[in-house]
Amino acid sequence: PLHASRRQQRPGRRRRCSGCRRFPEEAAVRSQQESGKMAHEAPFQLLHSELIHYICKSADSTDSENGRSVTKLENLGFRVGQGLIERLTKDTARFKDELDVMKFICKDFWTCVFKKQIDNLRTNHQGIYVLQDNKFLLLCHLSAGKQYLEHAPKYLAFTCGLVRGALSNMGVKSIVTAEVSVMPACKFQVMIQKV
Amino acid sequence: PLHASRRQQRPGRRRRCSGCRRFPEEAAVRSQQESGKMAHEAPFQLLHSELIHYICKSADSTDSENGRSVTKLENLGFRVGQGLIERLTKDTARFKDELDVMKFICKDFWTCVFKKQIDNLRTNHQGIYVLQDNKFLLLCHLSAGKQYLEHAPKYLAFTCGLVRGALSNMGVKSIVTAEVSVMPACKFQVMIQKV
Repeated sequence: PLHASRRQQRPGRRRRCSGCRRFPEEAAVRSQQESGKMAHEAPFQLLHSELIHYICKSADSTDSENGRSVTKLENLGFRVGQGLIERLTKDTARFKDELDVMKFICKDFWTCVFKKQIDNLRTNHQGIYVLQDNKFLLLCHLSAGKQYLEHAPKYLAFTCGLVRGALSNMGVKSIVTAEVSVMPACKFQVMIQKV
Repeated sequence: PLHASRRQQRPGRRRRCSGCRRFPEEAAVRSQQESGKMAHEAPFQLLHSELIHYICKSADSTDSENGRSVTKLENLGFRVGQGLIERLTKDTARFKDELDVMKFICKDFWTCVFKKQIDNLRTNHQGIYVLQDNKFLLLCHLSAGKQYLEHAPKYLAFTCGLVRGALSNMGVKSIVTAEVSVMPACKFQVMIQKV
């Protein structure tokens, strides 16, 4: 009864990795470094999944209930974002301008939480920023394709709040929304609210 | 409005670090490495705090309500522990015996989640193990001393579930409880349930 993982030793069944959803032979290509990284981010990623599970348990329910769950996740993210940015900016210099703040979110902040940088940052220079992550950590455990697209809002709400909370603590009021077309890529749109 | 952290720039007030609760002059002694580590573990730690806040919001309530909150946290931890051990043991060899399993929990598993090993593992060789962590990550943000002792169960329930879930996925059924005498040190007691 003391096997490392009996489930994965059952013969005759081709199992995907529970983390990256690749089959073992593909996954074996992963470098040591990548696998170390994966384990490192796993506690946060799994806790986030269970949080969604906990908050949205009555998920096959009405739209208004789903809406409330998404709002709860967003608010929770907001507070985590506030706490996180306070730690991250403790020793940083002041930021020059709004764009400088957004770059910090795309690099340092994103790396701290999601172990990679944002792949693409675009702006209309009028207060709208679009942050694109081509392989978003919190979508990676869902199958690629369109199968789970309808569940995407649940998996993105926490992060929308996270970004809004971080910006808010840096004195930037914003509205943050997210959009997925093909998993696990997604875009976060930040609309700065001038005060 | 774009300062890194205006709150920390307010003059005339001696502020503790929001992470380790030390004053800046003490905190400055921290090595770069330690501060990098701190940022790394922050998302998980903050998410855990907010989870407690969310689940125990009506916390100044009856004992039975508190009990229910603690059970919810424990169950959530259980599922995270299951998921985590599955990833961590994917490439490991079989475990020799129960003690071997416990050592894996104290080293690899603990390091993955809490960024340090268990400081002391004791056993009566009859199915009881005591894991002692002298500086437990999820208690580090509470003030040391006895001030918050009554809140400790909330902060330990998730981890009790985490250990129970991990062991359960390795075929070891157990009861896990926790005990704090002086923050941020704590002991987890694992009682193996023979089947």
